[in-house]
Amino acid sequence: MSVTPPRINRRNWLSGCGAMLALGATTGFGGALTGCATTQMRGTGDLGVVIGRGNGSLTLVDTTARVALGVIEGLGDLSHASAVFSRDGLFVYVFGRDGAMTQVNLLTRRITHRVIQAGNSIGGAISDDGALVAAQNYTPGGIKVFDAKTMELLADIPAIYEAAGGEQKRSRVVGLVDLPGRRFAYSLFDAGEIWITDCSDSANPVTQKFANIGNQPYDALITPGGRSYIAGLFGEDGLAMLDLWSEPLTVRRILAGYGQGGQKLPVYKMPHLRGWAVSGRHAWLPAIGQHEVLIADTENWELAGRVKVAGQPVFVMARPGSPQVWVSFAMPDYNQVQVIDTQSQRVIKTLQPGHAILHMEFTPRGEAIWISCRDDNLVRVIDTRNFATLASIAVPSPSGIFFTARANRVGF
Amino acid sequence: MSVTPPRINRRNWLSGCGAMLALGATTGFGGALTGCATTQMRGTGDLGVVIGRGNGSLTLVDTTARVALGVIEGLGDLSHASAVFSRDGLFVYVFGRDGAMTQVNLLTRRITHRVIQAGNSIGGAISDDGALVAAQNYTPGGIKVFDAKTMELLADIPAIYEAAGGEQKRSRVVGLVDLPGRRFAYSLFDAGEIWITDCSDSANPVTQKFANIGNQPYDALITPGGRSYIAGLFGEDGLAMLDLWSEPLTVRRILAGYGQGGQKLPVYKMPHLRGWAVSGRHAWLPAIGQHEVLIADTENWELAGRVKVAGQPVFVMARPGSPQVWVSFAMPDYNQVQVIDTQSQRVIKTLQPGHAILHMEFTPRGEAIWISCRDDNLVRVIDTRNFATLASIAVPSPSGIFFTARANRVGF
Repeated sequence: MSVTPPRINRRNWLSGCGAMLALGATTGFGGALTGCATTQMRGTGDLGVVIGRGNGSLTLVDTTARVALGVIEGLGDLSHASAVFSRDGLFVYVFGRDGAMTQVNLLTRRITHRVIQAGNSIGGAISDDGALVAAQNYTPGGIKVFDAKTMELLADIPAIYEAAGGEQKRSRVVGLVDLPGRRFAYSLFDAGEIWITDCSDSANPVTQKFANIGNQPYDALITPGGRSYIAGLFGEDGLAMLDLWSEPLTVRRILAGYGQGGQKLPVYKMPHLRGWAVSGRHAWLPAIGQHEVLIADTENWELAGRVKVAGQPVFVMARPGSPQVWVSFAMPDYNQVQVIDTQSQRVIKTLQPGHAILHMEFTPRGEAIWISCRDDNLVRVIDTRNFATLASIAVPSPSGIFFTARANRVGF
Repeated sequence: MSVTPPRINRRNWLSGCGAMLALGATTGFGGALTGCATTQMRGTGDLGVVIGRGNGSLTLVDTTARVALGVIEGLGDLSHASAVFSRDGLFVYVFGRDGAMTQVNLLTRRITHRVIQAGNSIGGAISDDGALVAAQNYTPGGIKVFDAKTMELLADIPAIYEAAGGEQKRSRVVGLVDLPGRRFAYSLFDAGEIWITDCSDSANPVTQKFANIGNQPYDALITPGGRSYIAGLFGEDGLAMLDLWSEPLTVRRILAGYGQGGQKLPVYKMPHLRGWAVSGRHAWLPAIGQHEVLIADTENWELAGRVKVAGQPVFVMARPGSPQVWVSFAMPDYNQVQVIDTQSQRVIKTLQPGHAILHMEFTPRGEAIWISCRDDNLVRVIDTRNFATLASIAVPSPSGIFFTARANRVGF
């Protein structure tokens, strides 16, 4: 087969790096493209990123081939980083502990925008329509809302509350999630408040505040159906639950005293609530400091049971479409992962996939789980049906694993 | 800015149409590319297709920009077509009534494979790992399993049962869904059976059969958490439910007599069970032939309530992350759509978005719903929060609407 190269239209030819990237990838002369990263025309539904804690890098991964596709560097301090995705799966937004928010194009594998938006940040969220990205900040305390495309700052909402003595202070913000209708819910650690900000008109956001929700909310989640916003409380034994479908909206305390009865242990790592599992009518959640996973009845939010596990649980996650719940642990037990069968409420498998397990992520339909083994500098991919290792992928000090399918889920 | 065109590596240059497509799209000399469709390097997470019933076409749509991107023709008889997506969101598999299965690349907008695999087909499914595509066939009755990449036939499972008098017959197959672990569940209309085929080893599929599940199963669904496979029964008043998490697996009859008490009406269009809504502990489902939506308690599968609606419901779908359930109707009431609030169990809105409404699809996080208005030759995009029309997109005789996010969901 012989094809005459088409005549080059110089005006279009010069239309920037993007054009050459596509050319480079598909015709193979990437070597000529100094300064341009490799790129590919491909679907983005099976892409993901793994945070490289050690060197501020992202490793781009393909969950179908189970391989690393490349590394993006220069993202700053990723010691406690999280990520959200644009609704087309093309861009990832990475929130670094240093207050930087970085937008990366997954196909060109390049940083497209980077903003130092705060001094100390703890994560972010993307609005249901994908138009707005919000960052939750410790310093200065509050949230900032950006245009997801241009990263232009659209709204700055300081988390100001009245401290003891009437002083106006700024609280650290935690537990930020998206709600339907371009809204965000988040919690004020120092104030003991939950706020909902409606950004329908992003230039004029409207904030509804719920005070006295409990002492020191430290993280939060939204249940899979989108009904309940639940904040864990560090300063007291229980959680705060906002029923988003009730009218008027009210917050009530749930699972008060759920940690009682056990011997208080030092807490080596705070559980991450975002990992909570809801399986049938039960929510499975980590007990703080205890070697237990708690079972809560989502009908009345009372304790329905406890399962003894190998250590202090950090992530408790339901495998999609199955009765399995997978649990990771705080040090010194963080070289293990346990699998609970929610029907028998028993641990059915204990795995030792590696050393210093920091995070787990299921593929969207749950046939595999990816596990970050920090001290082995690798990510282990495990078949959830027979627990076989499907792949081992080298990543320097891997921590958070995030797949593009998160873009399709409320509260991720 | 001036860039010297890189030297062309002829070996790679000649590597086929794909290479030129990328070049054409980004550098603009598409005119030279006779026989090659337009293409784009972009994310695939916000793509979808609308079936053009009238002319066997697919309209490719972008759910972020809310526009049509192009039309793919030549898909045959799409009078009752359905679609599934590859896990990367790059390919759609369209199952036509004429037994054709067509694989289309959404970025090149070209048909990449097309197989006439049966004489009369009613849809398909894709395995949890994306490796296998299965078609459910009326004639000859059975399922066929294909390699999702190459479309090579891997397994042919005839739906043979023993009819009255001991005769071996082939049943029409309906209600095909994927289950975790490369399995498929489906129902045999003529036999009154449910089968589960495990394709872990696709060359040697293993089928488990459940007989006497009820008279004439006509469609089925899997509940969102993946626990229950439920088949609607045409030949009797009730449904069959297979609890996929029980051991051993057993089928039981549920909601027996749920349509009783109402005056029997002629059924103008069978409800599509795939649209069922589960909201909290309740499932919302169409009553066959009645002007009612039924509420079932998913704890015990007993009837928990009924809501009067404008006509015979066809699709009953929960808006993601919200207490809304949207309902479309059979003729002659199919120019309306109603919205039920699941908390008050009341119709809160009646819309008239167009004429002959055949299908609805929510965007993945539910901020918008796309509605096919066949007799207006357009798809209406509606804001689910304030019911405003966001866009109207021309599509010839539109019916099914399918977004790539389905690739991430069990049972779709």
